[in-house]
Amino acid sequence: MLEALKKEVYEANLELARRGLAIYTWGNASGIDREAGLIVIKPSGVDYGKLRPEDMAVVDLDGRTVEGSLRPSSDTPTHIELYKAFPKIGGVAHTHSIYATAFAQSGRAIPACGTTHADYFHGPVPCARALTEAEVAGEYEKNTGLIIAELFCGIDPLELPACLVKSHGPFSWGRDCAEAVYHAAVLEYCAQMAAITEALGAGEGAPRYLLDRHYYRKHGKNAYYGQRED
Amino acid sequence: MLEALKKEVYEANLELARRGLAIYTWGNASGIDREAGLIVIKPSGVDYGKLRPEDMAVVDLDGRTVEGSLRPSSDTPTHIELYKAFPKIGGVAHTHSIYATAFAQSGRAIPACGTTHADYFHGPVPCARALTEAEVAGEYEKNTGLIIAELFCGIDPLELPACLVKSHGPFSWGRDCAEAVYHAAVLEYCAQMAAITEALGAGEGAPRYLLDRHYYRKHGKNAYYGQRED
Amino acid sequence: MLEALKKEVYEANLELARRGLAIYTWGNASGIDREAGLIVIKPSGVDYGKLRPEDMAVVDLDGRTVEGSLRPSSDTPTHIELYKAFPKIGGVAHTHSIYATAFAQSGRAIPACGTTHADYFHGPVPCARALTEAEVAGEYEKNTGLIIAELFCGIDPLELPACLVKSHGPFSWGRDCAEAVYHAAVLEYCAQMAAITEALGAGEGAPRYLLDRHYYRKHGKNAYYGQRED
Amino acid sequence: MLEALKKEVYEANLELARRGLAIYTWGNASGIDREAGLIVIKPSGVDYGKLRPEDMAVVDLDGRTVEGSLRPSSDTPTHIELYKAFPKIGGVAHTHSIYATAFAQSGRAIPACGTTHADYFHGPVPCARALTEAEVAGEYEKNTGLIIAELFCGIDPLELPACLVKSHGPFSWGRDCAEAVYHAAVLEYCAQMAAITEALGAGEGAPRYLLDRHYYRKHGKNAYYGQRED
Repeated sequence: MLEALKKEVYEANLELARRGLAIYTWGNASGIDREAGLIVIKPSGVDYGKLRPEDMAVVDLDGRTVEGSLRPSSDTPTHIELYKAFPKIGGVAHTHSIYATAFAQSGRAIPACGTTHADYFHGPVPCARALTEAEVAGEYEKNTGLIIAELFCGIDPLELPACLVKSHGPFSWGRDCAEAVYHAAVLEYCAQMAAITEALGAGEGAPRYLLDRHYYRKHGKNAYYGQRED
Repeated sequence: MLEALKKEVYEANLELARRGLAIYTWGNASGIDREAGLIVIKPSGVDYGKLRPEDMAVVDLDGRTVEGSLRPSSDTPTHIELYKAFPKIGGVAHTHSIYATAFAQSGRAIPACGTTHADYFHGPVPCARALTEAEVAGEYEKNTGLIIAELFCGIDPLELPACLVKSHGPFSWGRDCAEAVYHAAVLEYCAQMAAITEALGAGEGAPRYLLDRHYYRKHGKNAYYGQRED
Repeated sequence: MLEALKKEVYEANLELARRGLAIYTWGNASGIDREAGLIVIKPSGVDYGKLRPEDMAVVDLDGRTVEGSLRPSSDTPTHIELYKAFPKIGGVAHTHSIYATAFAQSGRAIPACGTTHADYFHGPVPCARALTEAEVAGEYEKNTGLIIAELFCGIDPLELPACLVKSHGPFSWGRDCAEAVYHAAVLEYCAQMAAITEALGAGEGAPRYLLDRHYYRKHGKNAYYGQRED
Repeated sequence: MLEALKKEVYEANLELARRGLAIYTWGNASGIDREAGLIVIKPSGVDYGKLRPEDMAVVDLDGRTVEGSLRPSSDTPTHIELYKAFPKIGGVAHTHSIYATAFAQSGRAIPACGTTHADYFHGPVPCARALTEAEVAGEYEKNTGLIIAELFCGIDPLELPACLVKSHGPFSWGRDCAEAVYHAAVLEYCAQMAAITEALGAGEGAPRYLLDRHYYRKHGKNAYYGQRED
């Protein structure tokens, strides 16, 4: 069942570890089969070194485990809310990568300091509001997804494929799980450069027309970066 | 004698080096056999690249070498005091890992900046008071253990499995020596993120209810992270 | 056609990835055959792990693809302007390396803090002015090359083989493409040291006579560093 | 001639590269045969990846090449002055390692922030005064050695086995060339921790009695660290 997606999600999770975005059992990546309405996600608390494709958990959009003997990631309800709110995405990743998490811990957006950022993110990567005590006491992981969705009201999630959760860390997404992990890696790189830029003195920042030029160089119908024939 | 524990302690020490927490001969990890009242610990001043399981030193709780031709780590009296003060722990680790040591050198606790920290440490990781000149001139390594024990009066050491020693570096512990090393690695990761968070502006910090939620998501009878059936 | 140069440019691009100066498809290096008036450059948007020597694109000085089925790097017009403005150079490299890019994002030159810098760069590595909205809306990549050339009016590009582009990142060059990449690596190293030096307090800076001594120890007819017989 | 020493010096130089203390052709390590009055040192400008034991240059204490077809390191006159001034040392190393060089570039000593530093360096690692324009114009590399020797007047170089040269970088030494490189690695580690400690707030610093305790735990006739029988 969903063998190809399991393999993809397994590879995406290993990539999190290989890129230094997750250690031990931290972080998780998932992918969705929209037709079947099923999500494949890393099992909870399993070390990257011991993960196998067949260990991936399969859950439906109500969070029920449909296949697999291992419990799905405890962050599964967050992934589910993102898939519900963002119909165009096919994968989600969550890490505690060092610089992106530091921005989340300081409760700040990652500013769009230059063209590296603009190549992937059409604007600053925002930090969601703090969850209230009631939201944490209740369906905490589900509410985490809901406040991201709330923040992205009116924003195309594929134009801004990441969000920070305050005091927690980054979530990212993409057209599939490999792209979600790719965005997690780029986000960490941009977060590190933003922190150093700020220490050096951020100056007046990058002008919007330059950031737009770079974003649309890579995205949309006038894109001319890469070998794509679109 | 204690062959299984020696192998475990040997592996835990190698893990210190593999995780980048110790270079050359620095750092040490130990494990205890509570029934036998014996501690297995890294020999003093031996390079990680040359360490063998049979080199591990065996000492009793009075610090007397019971087996082995190599002298035990010079920090052995600190380990002994921790085992005496904290009956529930089974392993201790000591490193000079960069960020945790920098916090110790600045004489500051590592603040609980977010959920990564809260997943392992139920509150800030404290920094023990400076040793007096008399305490340093006397049984220095033993006194190092005693001031940690003094600081943890009333604290469950398994809820806060690490402590900084001022101007020196971190000690960590756990149910066995592998867990002690695991906590040393997580501590360094959290210390690095805390330092960067502070540089970015720590904001109002993480609320206690969020930190508690994460701690109890992983620990205690209502934990729901991972595959454990407890 | 230009097989030797293709191999050289291929190797130079791989070296960008090996030195940690470029991840995924970022960055690019090129080399020129001055007699043929042809430039060999990395294809656009191809991952370093999948690059082959025969994938290198060949373009003339008007930017027309002369050989190869893959589109050349989108930064090709910048490379072309540099080759036109600097007749002595034989290779160009562009990266988003972390510290050099942070300086570019803060709109600042990399100061000549010490002899490591002076061994390669005869003075601070400047940051070109921001492009105007019209320059970005027009032939953006070509204009990027033109403002570097504008800034280097009266400067020997082989004495100062790198420049930052504001809000973007570094370009470097050399007598061939391997040297361009070498300068990209040294630039990143110097940028990191400059950032840390500044955090520690830059003091009164390095005196010009010391910087000159180091520069001329390695360059020009009185150089005495290395095994060269010149 | 001096085959064993050549092998040792060759290995010490490779260790500089392996430990990340030197890239490309940077840095150098040497060893001395006191009886023969000959120094073995890395050849100038040779890449670590291409170095062979037989490439090591042999020079006498007047700097004359006694054996080998390759020119010795351009820093050879500095090494010679250190060997002359410090009769007890058997090896010297020079690097541009990132944090130690940043301290040198800011013209500051590396403070003794904690026990890691005190385990190797009996006090702060000083930064030598700037060379005058005349000293730089004259026998620059020899004068570099002389100002270190001037600064160490009355200091036991084996108790403080390193020195920073302002706007340049660190030199270190030891009983042999392997120990000189060992000290270069420890110096870089301590420099990094000192920079981070300072960013976190250095507090009141480590008390002298603690630093002394650690230094003498490892050095001198009452040392009790390690397996040495001295």
